[in-house]
Amino acid sequence: MKAQLGGDEGKHKFVLKTPKGTRDYSPKQMAIRERVFNAIITCFKRHGAEVIDTPVFELKDFDIAGQFDPMIPDAECLKIVHEILSDLQLGDFLIKVNDRRILDGMFAVCGVPDSKFRTICSSVDKLDKMPWEEVRSEMVGEKGLSPEAADHIGEYVQLHGGLDLIEQLLQDPKLSQNKLAKEGLGDMKLLFEYLTLFGITGKISFDLSLARGLDYYTGVIFEAVLLQPENDHVEEPVSVGSVAGGGRYDGLVGMFDPKGRKVPCVGVSIGIERIFSILEQRVEASEEKIRTTETQVLVASAQKKLLEERLKLISELWNAGIKAEVLYKKNPKLLNQLQYCEDTGIPLVAIVGEQELKDGVVKLRVVATREEVNVRRESLVEEIRMRTSRP
Amino acid sequence: MKAQLGGDEGKHKFVLKTPKGTRDYSPKQMAIRERVFNAIITCFKRHGAEVIDTPVFELKDFDIAGQFDPMIPDAECLKIVHEILSDLQLGDFLIKVNDRRILDGMFAVCGVPDSKFRTICSSVDKLDKMPWEEVRSEMVGEKGLSPEAADHIGEYVQLHGGLDLIEQLLQDPKLSQNKLAKEGLGDMKLLFEYLTLFGITGKISFDLSLARGLDYYTGVIFEAVLLQPENDHVEEPVSVGSVAGGGRYDGLVGMFDPKGRKVPCVGVSIGIERIFSILEQRVEASEEKIRTTETQVLVASAQKKLLEERLKLISELWNAGIKAEVLYKKNPKLLNQLQYCEDTGIPLVAIVGEQELKDGVVKLRVVATREEVNVRRESLVEEIRMRTSRP
Repeated sequence: MKAQLGGDEGKHKFVLKTPKGTRDYSPKQMAIRERVFNAIITCFKRHGAEVIDTPVFELKDFDIAGQFDPMIPDAECLKIVHEILSDLQLGDFLIKVNDRRILDGMFAVCGVPDSKFRTICSSVDKLDKMPWEEVRSEMVGEKGLSPEAADHIGEYVQLHGGLDLIEQLLQDPKLSQNKLAKEGLGDMKLLFEYLTLFGITGKISFDLSLARGLDYYTGVIFEAVLLQPENDHVEEPVSVGSVAGGGRYDGLVGMFDPKGRKVPCVGVSIGIERIFSILEQRVEASEEKIRTTETQVLVASAQKKLLEERLKLISELWNAGIKAEVLYKKNPKLLNQLQYCEDTGIPLVAIVGEQELKDGVVKLRVVATREEVNVRRESLVEEIRMRTSRP
Repeated sequence: MKAQLGGDEGKHKFVLKTPKGTRDYSPKQMAIRERVFNAIITCFKRHGAEVIDTPVFELKDFDIAGQFDPMIPDAECLKIVHEILSDLQLGDFLIKVNDRRILDGMFAVCGVPDSKFRTICSSVDKLDKMPWEEVRSEMVGEKGLSPEAADHIGEYVQLHGGLDLIEQLLQDPKLSQNKLAKEGLGDMKLLFEYLTLFGITGKISFDLSLARGLDYYTGVIFEAVLLQPENDHVEEPVSVGSVAGGGRYDGLVGMFDPKGRKVPCVGVSIGIERIFSILEQRVEASEEKIRTTETQVLVASAQKKLLEERLKLISELWNAGIKAEVLYKKNPKLLNQLQYCEDTGIPLVAIVGEQELKDGVVKLRVVATREEVNVRRESLVEEIRMRTSRP
């Protein structure tokens, strides 16, 4: 759908049809959505993903399935989250990492009875919203855990850090005696070594309070949260909620495995609806102008009777892959053409005039700065590409 | 979703979930679909389209709405069809063009009663599937048209050509007396002048037998058909069906117009499902290998104990935007790594080995030719980009 300033009638925009099952989005919202999708899809493709049975518009999960050497695919999943959140420029973020085996081992050494693992785990899961004191009293008061076990858990779940913390816990007299915890900590160490090679440990925190949907996950679990920088009076940045998460789930039975064997799997889910609303709110707040088209240049004329010349030039630009528009009027005023660029955010104007045609040049105008340069016609495509390529 | 050769377990691929309302497509089908969508979306954006309320995956219509000088947006629509069909390389094509006003004028001067315009028009519409004799006997026998009127129509609807034909019809003693036909022919002449400036008249045919859904269209109508080149025993290429169409529909009431005024509109619809099946059939027939990922390079190692070096290198490549994969094994055999490229169509292998690390180079192997060159590590990204950029 495309609409321009229509003579005396003004602008006309309307929706011709709405496919079933889609919500009503404005061109502005669609532009934000496309930006997010592009960042995600570009990243997934960079990591060799193939699309199975999922329309481009729904693509937001990345899964690596198969029997592989430990922690290599897991590390790639964290790299993917890091790339996408960096690319989207949502602000400072932190990826919390833990392992189901470490959690289970921790509960065991703290004296939590097997039957209470699940309910105590769901209490731990509330630590991102509630202070430890409240979580403790829920454990003891509501769930009947002994105060000693709760205090013991409290010592662990308030720990977070990197390789140092992993080394420390590998030396922990109790945890190191637990088979599951030891296994999990060994793999966590390996994971951090790979994350160091990827250069992303700065935004990754091994956090013993992270406990997501334990019924599903079997190994590494992770969750990415955005940090609120405004609160500089508090000591640590405050999390404003999860925007991505995932983990290892080896228990799934392979649909295509003829023998119905389990297939190891590690996956990432991106919280796109969450990300959309964050970006939409931010755009509202900043009054930032969001462009709804990607047009690089408007082909304009300085005098009357130059429609043919405009059409010839825009055809050259389209054939060279340049995103270009022209006003659909025989003799538009230059001022109206410049105004159209202001309104729609087109950054460049290629102006043809009698003199320029004689000289074999096109006047290229930068809308933002009003700078004008004459560019030889044969160099115009290159010049537009150069001036509109992203940094 | 991503799966690799998984040690002894073999390949594992499975679908994790299917959004409602989508059909089951294989990765191969998805790759073909993505190629088609990319060509269409890239073209629409090149022409300044904004997306309204339509998920990327559904985008296949382009409409220009508003009151503009005649035939400029109409010419752009034909340019768009020409660009998309050229880009998709579906084979030779022809875009047939006509105008509702010319058809109506033609019926009038041939002596078709007003009340029979519609039914006679639907007979004309069958001319792409039936010979004139059959269409004529339907008009006369079933629809009660006089044989003289039918013969008169027959003379016109077998005409097709370019500017020459338009000029000829503008001189036609009967048509030139009809107001509607004269108006339509005048605009058709203007359209062909613009199409000449766009350099696309070679694939455009003014065809008096083209008659699409007349209830809807009010001016220019067009339809793009693929031509079958195999039939070189027949005089003219045979059409294998419509892959795009559209026209002007000025009767629509603008949804956003406060006074409910009619908004002039011209639009293109691309027959994507048709195009998909043509491409899928062609891929089946040619046994062409369709890649399901876009990975440019596999990061491989020539000796054992180089996992860390592989991860360091692939991280550099990912950060530079290169689409890269690595096998998720600590010590994969070089042969297995090369085989993975053969199987998945990855064109390049970046091989690290002890000697290369010492020399500060990476061995870059072209999978198709087995050519190997040492590339300085700092030039690797540029070299991969150069070797994998499309011609």
